[in-house]
Amino acid sequence: MAHLLSASCAVNLPPAIKTYFRPRNKHTTSCSSSFVSRTSPIFSSYRRTLQEPNFVYATATPLSKELEHIPKSGSSTNSNGPISKPRRVMVIGGDGFCGWATSLHLSNKNYEVAVVDSLVRRLFDHQLGIDSLTPISSIQNRIRRWKALTGKTMQLYIGDICDFEFLSEAFKSFEPDVVVHFGEQRSAPYSMIDRSRAVFTQHNNVIGTLNVLFAIKEFSEECHLVKLGTMGEYGTPNIDIEEGYLTITHNGRTDTLPYPKQASSFYHLSKVHDSHNIAFTCKAWGIRATDLNQGVVYGVRTDETTLHEELCNRFDYDGVFGTALNRFCVQAAVGHPLTVYGKGGQTRGYLDIRDTVQCVELAIANPAKPGEFRVFNQFTEQFSVNDLAGLVTKAGKKLGLEVQTISVPNPRVEAEEHYYNAKHRKLIELGLKPHVLSDSLLDSLLNVAIQFKDRVDHSQIMPNISWKKIGVKPRTAPVQL
Amino acid sequence: MAHLLSASCAVNLPPAIKTYFRPRNKHTTSCSSSFVSRTSPIFSSYRRTLQEPNFVYATATPLSKELEHIPKSGSSTNSNGPISKPRRVMVIGGDGFCGWATSLHLSNKNYEVAVVDSLVRRLFDHQLGIDSLTPISSIQNRIRRWKALTGKTMQLYIGDICDFEFLSEAFKSFEPDVVVHFGEQRSAPYSMIDRSRAVFTQHNNVIGTLNVLFAIKEFSEECHLVKLGTMGEYGTPNIDIEEGYLTITHNGRTDTLPYPKQASSFYHLSKVHDSHNIAFTCKAWGIRATDLNQGVVYGVRTDETTLHEELCNRFDYDGVFGTALNRFCVQAAVGHPLTVYGKGGQTRGYLDIRDTVQCVELAIANPAKPGEFRVFNQFTEQFSVNDLAGLVTKAGKKLGLEVQTISVPNPRVEAEEHYYNAKHRKLIELGLKPHVLSDSLLDSLLNVAIQFKDRVDHSQIMPNISWKKIGVKPRTAPVQL
Repeated sequence: MAHLLSASCAVNLPPAIKTYFRPRNKHTTSCSSSFVSRTSPIFSSYRRTLQEPNFVYATATPLSKELEHIPKSGSSTNSNGPISKPRRVMVIGGDGFCGWATSLHLSNKNYEVAVVDSLVRRLFDHQLGIDSLTPISSIQNRIRRWKALTGKTMQLYIGDICDFEFLSEAFKSFEPDVVVHFGEQRSAPYSMIDRSRAVFTQHNNVIGTLNVLFAIKEFSEECHLVKLGTMGEYGTPNIDIEEGYLTITHNGRTDTLPYPKQASSFYHLSKVHDSHNIAFTCKAWGIRATDLNQGVVYGVRTDETTLHEELCNRFDYDGVFGTALNRFCVQAAVGHPLTVYGKGGQTRGYLDIRDTVQCVELAIANPAKPGEFRVFNQFTEQFSVNDLAGLVTKAGKKLGLEVQTISVPNPRVEAEEHYYNAKHRKLIELGLKPHVLSDSLLDSLLNVAIQFKDRVDHSQIMPNISWKKIGVKPRTAPVQL
Repeated sequence: MAHLLSASCAVNLPPAIKTYFRPRNKHTTSCSSSFVSRTSPIFSSYRRTLQEPNFVYATATPLSKELEHIPKSGSSTNSNGPISKPRRVMVIGGDGFCGWATSLHLSNKNYEVAVVDSLVRRLFDHQLGIDSLTPISSIQNRIRRWKALTGKTMQLYIGDICDFEFLSEAFKSFEPDVVVHFGEQRSAPYSMIDRSRAVFTQHNNVIGTLNVLFAIKEFSEECHLVKLGTMGEYGTPNIDIEEGYLTITHNGRTDTLPYPKQASSFYHLSKVHDSHNIAFTCKAWGIRATDLNQGVVYGVRTDETTLHEELCNRFDYDGVFGTALNRFCVQAAVGHPLTVYGKGGQTRGYLDIRDTVQCVELAIANPAKPGEFRVFNQFTEQFSVNDLAGLVTKAGKKLGLEVQTISVPNPRVEAEEHYYNAKHRKLIELGLKPHVLSDSLLDSLLNVAIQFKDRVDHSQIMPNISWKKIGVKPRTAPVQL
């Protein structure tokens, strides 16, 4: 009954937004696990406990002998040598939209997975009065259900990576070969609600990633960092977008330099900052890192999430966390006109969530070299917003939906008509087999929207966060009531 | 006796490293000044108090009628129109090496100057056991002495710009036409001492600058931000370094993009992050900003600091805050071999502190346009470290000093032999008349080092902070005892 032990321990901890189930100080009785020497007898039994399935971080002790039979499978890190075959993957942000799908996919592929998450994304839903279109289970139930269905376990560390004490304990106990880092505030509109959300986004993302880099340097030097960046780091330059670097000839000399960055929200900027920080640590410390500059993700179903309703992934359609295409599908399903921001010529890279999980797996299976900062543009197709509206209209018709499109004032500051040609060859070269939107729309996207249309909150759909009007006073209700 | 009032008020505040003299909550009696409506009678008298010379922020009330005769000179901001002639300059970090020299220079040029500073730089000296070669007075005595000598006043706001409540009160009371922002942790080695200093540096610099941007947007939309960047943002690319932007032709198309950044310490990276954040706010909000990508500053004397010993500027030669050339001069003065890191081919831009103050004045007098993010490379000459050692040796000889040079292991991760050709035309075009190092060395640099050589702490000279060895545990004594 490891779970009950964990629950009874956890509820004694003081409530704190950023450190759910954070371990107590070493001087405070039974939940304590921090600062245990790795060579002490206590550490040995502590480590055994951590190999327990469905492990919640704060439950390091008391020990449960019954759990010791579960082997620490697949560990392959040698602190002095290369990773022979990475097996132990820590997924930071593993309870989120991309993170949960990835955790399941990697577990299904027999990687040993640890989910690290503060669950703050669920708190944002409560605070903003928004909700996933699809009903989602707790992370504990998700992991329990996955084990019941497949026999595969995931470890669970609940805490905030900005808390280095928490992060270092998670590293020391799990000993990852790979860290997949989704654990950031990932909404551009959220970062533009007010000053405090802008500051939170940059602090949370930049410091969290710095902590991950320090943890790798200190505890798992050979560990491969697979970091989720964004195509938004590049902005919309008037030249082709390459994958991370650009070879430039200037005044008769040539160098290959980081591709210039022009991000357009405090969120996108936080990812630019991360990229620069990571590049430096690769050079200075020999960190091996892959930056996945991801496009806009659509869809919800993957092979694993469809196995059971408790594994269902979240599907955001609101004005804060919803991505354009998900929102359009929901709008089509409920008879709301598709809301194109401004002229609709904004062109971006898009990909199916099923390709997100493939891409991460490919990056893990083909790790960066020590000291290498590798950048992959992670998307499969380019569309303008008007293209998307057209595709949803066409697919809707086949399902008998009458779909209209309207233009609404653009809440963002961005070019609405521009050149856009972004390269995305590297993941294809590694073996990515893309799903294409025209198939996915009918296969899953619109059907999911229709299936759950009774759960749609119409007040969540319209944008209510302005890039120009952001102010210094806290906004308590950026979503309309 | 405004100063005594301020002192008696300030000492009642709780001690806090980051918020010296922070105003009390509005509900707590006599020191309170926050949240006063700008149109209320209280605000009017409050504003009058703030025009008082040597004003310390926390002394907003009680009011002192005797001070009302001092006019608020030179204000020229029109909240709806352009700045006719900027007069009111807020110097954030005005107690620091560049900040103090700049504050004096601008005051001497009849700008109305407010110094904003948390004084945390003085705390670093205490914590690290280091000290300025030159004895420096408190900021209060500096400002008092300046007034006694010249009749010119400076306002003083002591607090942390990461505390937005403090910063917004300073903005509302001073109403700057220009903010000159030196208020950052500015040492690369400091940022590489340990994880907590790395995190402090990025948090302090990035969030402080975000707060300044929000304050400008909210309270002084026409205000011109003059932000100190660093030439270190560019790294050492194998092509010419331009001023902020690079016109790139790629696959037959051309665009002018931000110059690629390759910073090489957590400090330098923080300035890269600032630059990206500022560029975004210029575009999204119409902020007008000048980024002064400054080279390595040497020297200590300016026209103003030489007027009185209480105006003397700080002179850092230690392994944490000392710049290469200052350190070499101290080493020559005390008979210590000049310590070249590695091969000594590291080439950078340098400038005299007297040119720093000129450059800032030129940027202020020729403001950026609304929405413009302008970048000037602020240095006057390029030297390799070996060049500097040679110049100091030669100048030392003329003064009868026997100067030797040794190579010490490079504590940094950087190219020791590389191409370097950085443009620096824009400030020259605005009228900068550079001082050249060959003159300054004999005129002031070596002489100052010799004058104060009895104050040299030999244990401070050698580098003791390694880019590769930085760890997660707090280092309590990075300077040797």
